[in-house]
Amino acid sequence: MSSRFSGLTPLLAPRSVAVLGASSDPTRISGRPIAYMLAQGFQGALYPINPNRTEVQGLKAYASIADLPETPDVAIVAVAAEVAAPAVEELGKRGVKAIVMFTAGFAEMDESGEAAQAKMVATARSYGMRLLGPNCLGVFDARRSYYATFSSSFDSGWPVPGRIGIASQSGAYGTHLYTLARNRGIGASLCVMTGNEADVTVGECIGWLAENPEVDVIAVYAEGIREAPGLIAALETARAAKKPIVMQKVGRSELGTKAAKSHTASIAGDDAVTEAIMNEFGVYRARNSEEMLDIAHTATRKIYPVRNTLGVITVSGGAGVLISDVAETVNLSMPEMPLDAQKKLRDLVPFCAPRNPVDATAQVSNDVTLVKTFTESMVRDGGYTSVLGFFSMTASSRRWPSIREQLNAVMTENPGRLYALSVIIPPAGRDELEADGWVVHEDPTRAVVAIDAMGRFGAAFAAAQGAPPPTVPAVTLPAKNPSEAEAKRLLATAGIASAPEAECATADQAVAAAERFGYPVVMKILSPDIVHKSEIGGVLLDVSDAASVRDGYALLLERAKSAAPTAKIDGVLVAKQLKGGVECILGIHRDPVFGPMAMFGLGGIFVEILKDVVFRRCPFGADVAEDMIRSIKGAPLLLGARGRKKADVKALAETLSRLSAFAVAAGPRLQSIDLNPVFAMPEGDGAFAVDAVIEVGD
Amino acid sequence: MSSRFSGLTPLLAPRSVAVLGASSDPTRISGRPIAYMLAQGFQGALYPINPNRTEVQGLKAYASIADLPETPDVAIVAVAAEVAAPAVEELGKRGVKAIVMFTAGFAEMDESGEAAQAKMVATARSYGMRLLGPNCLGVFDARRSYYATFSSSFDSGWPVPGRIGIASQSGAYGTHLYTLARNRGIGASLCVMTGNEADVTVGECIGWLAENPEVDVIAVYAEGIREAPGLIAALETARAAKKPIVMQKVGRSELGTKAAKSHTASIAGDDAVTEAIMNEFGVYRARNSEEMLDIAHTATRKIYPVRNTLGVITVSGGAGVLISDVAETVNLSMPEMPLDAQKKLRDLVPFCAPRNPVDATAQVSNDVTLVKTFTESMVRDGGYTSVLGFFSMTASSRRWPSIREQLNAVMTENPGRLYALSVIIPPAGRDELEADGWVVHEDPTRAVVAIDAMGRFGAAFAAAQGAPPPTVPAVTLPAKNPSEAEAKRLLATAGIASAPEAECATADQAVAAAERFGYPVVMKILSPDIVHKSEIGGVLLDVSDAASVRDGYALLLERAKSAAPTAKIDGVLVAKQLKGGVECILGIHRDPVFGPMAMFGLGGIFVEILKDVVFRRCPFGADVAEDMIRSIKGAPLLLGARGRKKADVKALAETLSRLSAFAVAAGPRLQSIDLNPVFAMPEGDGAFAVDAVIEVGD
Repeated sequence: MSSRFSGLTPLLAPRSVAVLGASSDPTRISGRPIAYMLAQGFQGALYPINPNRTEVQGLKAYASIADLPETPDVAIVAVAAEVAAPAVEELGKRGVKAIVMFTAGFAEMDESGEAAQAKMVATARSYGMRLLGPNCLGVFDARRSYYATFSSSFDSGWPVPGRIGIASQSGAYGTHLYTLARNRGIGASLCVMTGNEADVTVGECIGWLAENPEVDVIAVYAEGIREAPGLIAALETARAAKKPIVMQKVGRSELGTKAAKSHTASIAGDDAVTEAIMNEFGVYRARNSEEMLDIAHTATRKIYPVRNTLGVITVSGGAGVLISDVAETVNLSMPEMPLDAQKKLRDLVPFCAPRNPVDATAQVSNDVTLVKTFTESMVRDGGYTSVLGFFSMTASSRRWPSIREQLNAVMTENPGRLYALSVIIPPAGRDELEADGWVVHEDPTRAVVAIDAMGRFGAAFAAAQGAPPPTVPAVTLPAKNPSEAEAKRLLATAGIASAPEAECATADQAVAAAERFGYPVVMKILSPDIVHKSEIGGVLLDVSDAASVRDGYALLLERAKSAAPTAKIDGVLVAKQLKGGVECILGIHRDPVFGPMAMFGLGGIFVEILKDVVFRRCPFGADVAEDMIRSIKGAPLLLGARGRKKADVKALAETLSRLSAFAVAAGPRLQSIDLNPVFAMPEGDGAFAVDAVIEVGD
Repeated sequence: MSSRFSGLTPLLAPRSVAVLGASSDPTRISGRPIAYMLAQGFQGALYPINPNRTEVQGLKAYASIADLPETPDVAIVAVAAEVAAPAVEELGKRGVKAIVMFTAGFAEMDESGEAAQAKMVATARSYGMRLLGPNCLGVFDARRSYYATFSSSFDSGWPVPGRIGIASQSGAYGTHLYTLARNRGIGASLCVMTGNEADVTVGECIGWLAENPEVDVIAVYAEGIREAPGLIAALETARAAKKPIVMQKVGRSELGTKAAKSHTASIAGDDAVTEAIMNEFGVYRARNSEEMLDIAHTATRKIYPVRNTLGVITVSGGAGVLISDVAETVNLSMPEMPLDAQKKLRDLVPFCAPRNPVDATAQVSNDVTLVKTFTESMVRDGGYTSVLGFFSMTASSRRWPSIREQLNAVMTENPGRLYALSVIIPPAGRDELEADGWVVHEDPTRAVVAIDAMGRFGAAFAAAQGAPPPTVPAVTLPAKNPSEAEAKRLLATAGIASAPEAECATADQAVAAAERFGYPVVMKILSPDIVHKSEIGGVLLDVSDAASVRDGYALLLERAKSAAPTAKIDGVLVAKQLKGGVECILGIHRDPVFGPMAMFGLGGIFVEILKDVVFRRCPFGADVAEDMIRSIKGAPLLLGARGRKKADVKALAETLSRLSAFAVAAGPRLQSIDLNPVFAMPEGDGAFAVDAVIEVGD
């Protein structure tokens, strides 16, 4: 393979491996990789390097990297931190392409360690070498018998080969994960653990797995993303290749973030931002390792329905209810069977439950072909893209072989669906069912979550490219933070509308402006010397006719004069007073990793108390903006719930997407934008920013 | 044992068992109970009844119930539905105390089945017999080798004895549950499955388990509660005995409820109501069977901290972050270690993480006693009531025996805490750790949820009895729905305040009332003939001085006269106009099972769009009411979030608890009450109903 991430191939799939300071003791850190590769039969060349030995674990040992008969693709380095730097230099001189560095005592330790790490990476880069770690548990690929790792987990067994690839920032948790996979008989051949990420990032590893034809599904454990372009390119590659990514991202909570910061090297990126990136690319965020493996394993069937529907066949009405509950919670559709199909089934078994969940009842004991008849009707008449059978411990009963035969017949004759079973069965029986083509889960609720995830992948893969972000003119930010009026003028160049307003130097101008906008209007004293206008009575609301505008003009000038006799008075600001709109907040903030991120939420308590907001990387088109708007909990307020008027969601989405394009056009000096509030007016009447704050950096 | 539920003892722990229509075939429904009891050695008397045989499965068979040498405690009935009724009659005549009825074809089938079931239960009751089922999978108690069940699950193994008791409405799901328990090595000796619940309910079974000294923890699966007094008494008994209940209640979703209704006999009770009952008694609602077993198993350690805190010792920083995330999600406190203890640990291991999660780092490899030093410091210095060790696959490594020794020393020397491990280990190793005293979970997130549940049980057991519900005078409901003013007067007798208002027959009276209340006031035309006051301009808001009240009085009379010349005019209603309050909704509705239930929520979007409401069985005291108020998501709005004024939560709670007492005092004719809105005024200013609707039934 050759493309964006092929530079990692010498590291992750090398033809030749050198081990610095190779030990004859197979239980020592620098002995283990050799012991593992010998035990499993690594096909490439393996070069122990040890100046004190001529032989290590039965292999010829070399005194130095210079003595090797060929230049190895990768070198494993487990030497002490003090001597790691010269070792890297030496490897670079020899032309080695990549290093796996187990050695700890760098950035995770203290500032001097951080400096040493930076220097070492600079050396590696000067030779064009890639470096995994330091302070990492390394990488293995069971299919190639490549074990550049000192994980002791192989004491209890070798990985089960399969088409899941794992990328983890944490060594201990990566090991935990693949050990769980192995114990459940789930095939995950390849696991890379990135440690301090001084050079190679988890994002790049995802990209390499996405390009790897031996990998269908990618499972990721991450604590924080340090580098955006690699991750974004990786997620794009995976989506284009229709390879689902399941990711466990920790540090969601305040407490978790604190714990993360006291752990290993620093955590970059805000959790909400990482979540927004995951949503953008259809990455499934798993709550725990079990969910991650459930979903990754189910995904290896490569059935990703674009519009997922679930049909359930059950031996327990109670389980049917439970499954329906969970399906509703995760929003997985369980349509009713067509009425004629229900009738047909009821004609066969008078007291069956043919609706969905479907229950053929104990009649199955008398006629096992009913299992096939009922399940087939679900697939053919119900048209479900996913079928889940709840058979619990029936799968350990004497009747099971004949039921299995009936079920298999349906599957064989109706391919292209996702077939899952919730059964209690010993591992051997489970493996047989998996070989038949079923995805086997013990717990029905976990099965539903995994099935739902397949639909989410399908929808993400099928998502139309979407409208391009709007084109906005070049933005020249002022030297320092603009005033509200300046901010609104800048935003107006990108087509972001504010409530109409005019600076008026005479009462006549004020009346003309008010007549132009329509009543009521708001009037504010205009003076660079009066900051807190309302404190001197400098703001008038609900001004509703020409006479009142004239009176108001005089009143404001009089108040200003008496409260601040020396202030320079420029006149009065007249603005249309918006009524009947829904208060929203639109904002931008610059994330140190991912750049400008847009935020949308409803105003007031929704943001303040319920934290009901959504984020997205800038820029994006109006269709994405509308999806964002519709995704928040309070969306019904905009969509006309309970007899409310529908708000102008189209205009609001247009404003949001224009804001995202503006944020990019404004360049890296833009720190943040707050449009609070924006009024989404009734449908057809637009959306208008009422206040605007733009923060500019250096 | 002898008490409220001892009437079920002949059914659930009989000394003698008869089997009607006993079969010689141990695989047939009426052969299985005998086969199981013979295989496991039931200690009581076992009487097969079969007129066609003298011997069944090696036991002497009897021709009829009349021929038995003694009256059995319980009879197992698996005869056809048509002959079930005469069998019940015959058993009653003989004086049998209880029946386990497997037979299906009753209420779950159709109306005639329902009628047959009702008749059969009436017969049983006329003889003082209790009946489990019909259409049930029965009951077993492995400790007594009592198997009144035809479950085929014993094909794959016998239950693991232990101190968990299971009560399930669903046979298939009950079996699923205890099979899962058995496969995980979790001891659940006793399982009762109630099927159609024609007589014995799941509530009563919970009560019997709560009184059973051989049971410490009760696991329940329910689809709907049909009978309140038994369940309430059972929950009270369990709470008094400090026996935790974990319950899986399905039918939470709309879809699930539909599925439930198409299943077995009908579902009673609304899910939100059942959830309120669970909250009232500290029953933990499990999301799925795994969570139920995790929690039930953890609870068998009988450590229920009243104020639970979690200390985590980990070999993986990443897992520490994950655990912190979950702890925050479930609201389990993970306080930081005391600073001097952190310093002490850092002096021992310079780069350790001593905060919590605590990580002794790889130094442990050099000095395994660090495991004890660190863990002990957590217990003694940190004072955590619960300790979770994340050791993942370290527990399968060569180092584990010495680590285990260190950990065990801490546990032995510091009893009374909850000790849990997250490890990946084969079943034999797990069983050893469990025998040591650890609760073993593979997944750390599931461990956290289970540990948190122990604190919830502790808090529920320790909860003060609470203030008694307020005493309210007797309530005499009118014959039909009262008017708003009548409703407010009725409620006022219970001390529920409405916004002050007065019926005024003259302008002078109106002014006097307004002066008494303080301005502004609302004025409404008073006429039995004018229903829609606002349509004729019959409501004036913001009336703010005496002159305006006089003008308003005249204006309202004039408008009424012109709009409805023939209407009888009684004068004008003057009411204080409330400003600055938080809009709440207080309500009562009569649940068919549990009687009057109180509801509290914030007004407007909180109820309409976010469904942010809480329910509670009536009556209750003001402290419970305050807990309800504080439990909703929008509570910060009342508690002074973000610079808002604090609302008068005490007065609001008092109003809510008085409403609950009123609802009970009003008796069964009360259908519902709606106080919408109630304004919770700023602290010290009270809470007032602005509208009141009382619905009265026959």
